[in-house]
Amino acid sequence: MKIAILGGDGFIGWPTALHLSDAGHEIHIIDNLSRRWIDTELGVQSLTPMDSIQERTRIWHQETGRRIHFHLIDLARDYEVFKQWLSANRPEAIIHFAEQRAAPYSMKSDRHKNYTVNNNVNATHNVLNAIVETGIDAHLVHLGTMGVYGYSTVGAAIPEGYLPVGIDTMGGETVRQEILYPANPGSIYHMTKCLDQLLFQFYAKNDGLRITDLHQGIVWGTHTEQTRRHAQLINRFDYDGDYGTVLNRFLIQAAIGYPLTVHGSGGQTRAFIHIQDSVRCIELALKNPPARGSRVEIFNQMTETHRVADLARLVSGLTGAEVVNLPNPRKEAPENDLVVENAKFLALGLDPIKLADGLLDEVVEVARKFAFRVDRSRIPAMSAWTKEIAPRLNADPEGKRLKSVS
Amino acid sequence: MKIAILGGDGFIGWPTALHLSDAGHEIHIIDNLSRRWIDTELGVQSLTPMDSIQERTRIWHQETGRRIHFHLIDLARDYEVFKQWLSANRPEAIIHFAEQRAAPYSMKSDRHKNYTVNNNVNATHNVLNAIVETGIDAHLVHLGTMGVYGYSTVGAAIPEGYLPVGIDTMGGETVRQEILYPANPGSIYHMTKCLDQLLFQFYAKNDGLRITDLHQGIVWGTHTEQTRRHAQLINRFDYDGDYGTVLNRFLIQAAIGYPLTVHGSGGQTRAFIHIQDSVRCIELALKNPPARGSRVEIFNQMTETHRVADLARLVSGLTGAEVVNLPNPRKEAPENDLVVENAKFLALGLDPIKLADGLLDEVVEVARKFAFRVDRSRIPAMSAWTKEIAPRLNADPEGKRLKSVS
Repeated sequence: MKIAILGGDGFIGWPTALHLSDAGHEIHIIDNLSRRWIDTELGVQSLTPMDSIQERTRIWHQETGRRIHFHLIDLARDYEVFKQWLSANRPEAIIHFAEQRAAPYSMKSDRHKNYTVNNNVNATHNVLNAIVETGIDAHLVHLGTMGVYGYSTVGAAIPEGYLPVGIDTMGGETVRQEILYPANPGSIYHMTKCLDQLLFQFYAKNDGLRITDLHQGIVWGTHTEQTRRHAQLINRFDYDGDYGTVLNRFLIQAAIGYPLTVHGSGGQTRAFIHIQDSVRCIELALKNPPARGSRVEIFNQMTETHRVADLARLVSGLTGAEVVNLPNPRKEAPENDLVVENAKFLALGLDPIKLADGLLDEVVEVARKFAFRVDRSRIPAMSAWTKEIAPRLNADPEGKRLKSVS
Repeated sequence: MKIAILGGDGFIGWPTALHLSDAGHEIHIIDNLSRRWIDTELGVQSLTPMDSIQERTRIWHQETGRRIHFHLIDLARDYEVFKQWLSANRPEAIIHFAEQRAAPYSMKSDRHKNYTVNNNVNATHNVLNAIVETGIDAHLVHLGTMGVYGYSTVGAAIPEGYLPVGIDTMGGETVRQEILYPANPGSIYHMTKCLDQLLFQFYAKNDGLRITDLHQGIVWGTHTEQTRRHAQLINRFDYDGDYGTVLNRFLIQAAIGYPLTVHGSGGQTRAFIHIQDSVRCIELALKNPPARGSRVEIFNQMTETHRVADLARLVSGLTGAEVVNLPNPRKEAPENDLVVENAKFLALGLDPIKLADGLLDEVVEVARKFAFRVDRSRIPAMSAWTKEIAPRLNADPEGKRLKSVS
């Protein structure tokens, strides 16, 4: 297949590009490299030393003989350029990662809120619009988030996108309907993924586009089968308070002798998936597109759930690291239950990598190897969800002066 | 009260500004005048001769001694300018009409789709973001649309925003919840109002903003008590295929001896409200803001429902006009029922103006007076919802060559 990977230079985009190239597909990465610019803005960098996208693809060709093509296009801004590219190249599938993906970054300031809304909504809409306009029949696979569902506890398992409900009619009967699960986003970033869902729903209904939305849990790990093949194919690995995600941060913190930072009580339950499974799920989704004219296909792309405090205990037990509880920068329930259905990917053959499978050690090892690259002052999470919360975020576990970018 | 009216130069914005100024409020219109630019783009104009906003406000002052202030700001683009204005002026209420509001215009071409999404989402988000950032405690009143609900028939009345549903839990019980009515927009324009709903939900939850969303039916009529006071205070009155709305178009078509254009079978049922009631509802909403920290207040701003074919028959009976059935440019169900709850405005004292109240004649009279300004070739609705529908739209009831702008 000829596959366009939008945002193919990112944390999941890059290993996806390698995985699908390895499987024999013709891969075109389209990216505006904004994630690298945000590193520059924030003055942080990936724990792992990443080469340029051009250099990465050169190494991949040298190692495998396969080409990954790169096109510098800003999807949110350059609609006409993208449309022309699409019309000339006519991919059979498009994988869409091209969105600002950090909740804390999206809450940093009014400028960051506007950027996230503007970038994410326009990128997604431009892609849909261009598919219709060029008339190509590409299957669109989008990376959504478990966060579209929110984390409020009603006692029902979170279904894969669609919730069966009973609605009372005027005649006194109860009618059963399947509705898109009511959106309850916890940040501007998560909200943009809820907006995306409505864009997808409309374009599937009005134009018959074939769309798959993958509501992904928190990704952990850094290596995949392909990124291990050469030092210069290494994946991005974020540890800072904005882009680092909870389990990976714990592992890095443990590796460098920094306390494991639990925000609030740690009673938050979250869904997780290993990065190797993430790229496998995307491949499974590609192989199983919805029929033209049917509703958006939605998968829950996660393999297990854990309470944050339990994860901290687990990593602490493995490594001897200390655990600290810090004020929570987020406005969220102090604790929640979370039961998630993920039968669809399992039925398609996914054999999940679990935390228990020993890969936590590998992550700690990678972190130890590059520990010298860590700026410890960038570890605390400093993006407050509201003005009331901001003054509380004064607790650097190492007692240094905190830096903030806004 | 000091009130900012965003989009106060438009079809409902202008009579709202006059109505609230007349009631003694300090009115600030903020508008980028985009609707006038779209007239220029499409090469059509309001049936009624509209003066500039500056001239209109001069006449209002001359007639009443009251000032309406005008500020030229593009809300979707000039976030910083708007934020500074808000911070300096600190209005107690903000009424938000500042969105591209025609479904056919939003479906005209890929450029129009992008414009509508970009303009409407960014305008709404910029307003919310600026309210939080400046810390003002303004009540935000937004003009939504009945179209967020869609027109599918499940046998339940459409509630005011929130639908009670039963959800089956893992324990085998059924839990009752009120959810935002599942969005089912029929055009890009309607979709942007669904996106707005999620923006409002998030900002009410995260930042405690006080927000009222008014899901309005199709507005008919043109005069209000204040626009009648002087020829130069006259309201905009659209008849073209993009911006003209169904009942007003029938009345204009009848006035100029043009067939009444029913698209499809006319079995579509829609909700209606007279423009005088529309401005009264907005005043009622202003007087009844939700409490800080509560969910978004939602009203259905409509007073009656009618089937399009019945309206055509009614106007034909009044005026002797011929009715023609044309291919439907929209992708929609050929017919639908529609039962809508609107008890909340009635409870607050709204005494609705109904079609039966004799005001249809007034509209026909206005249309006859300005009939010489009509370009008959701009009456057919030429914006097709899909590429498959477009070739069917070849039926000008007057048999002339059709013009299309894209």
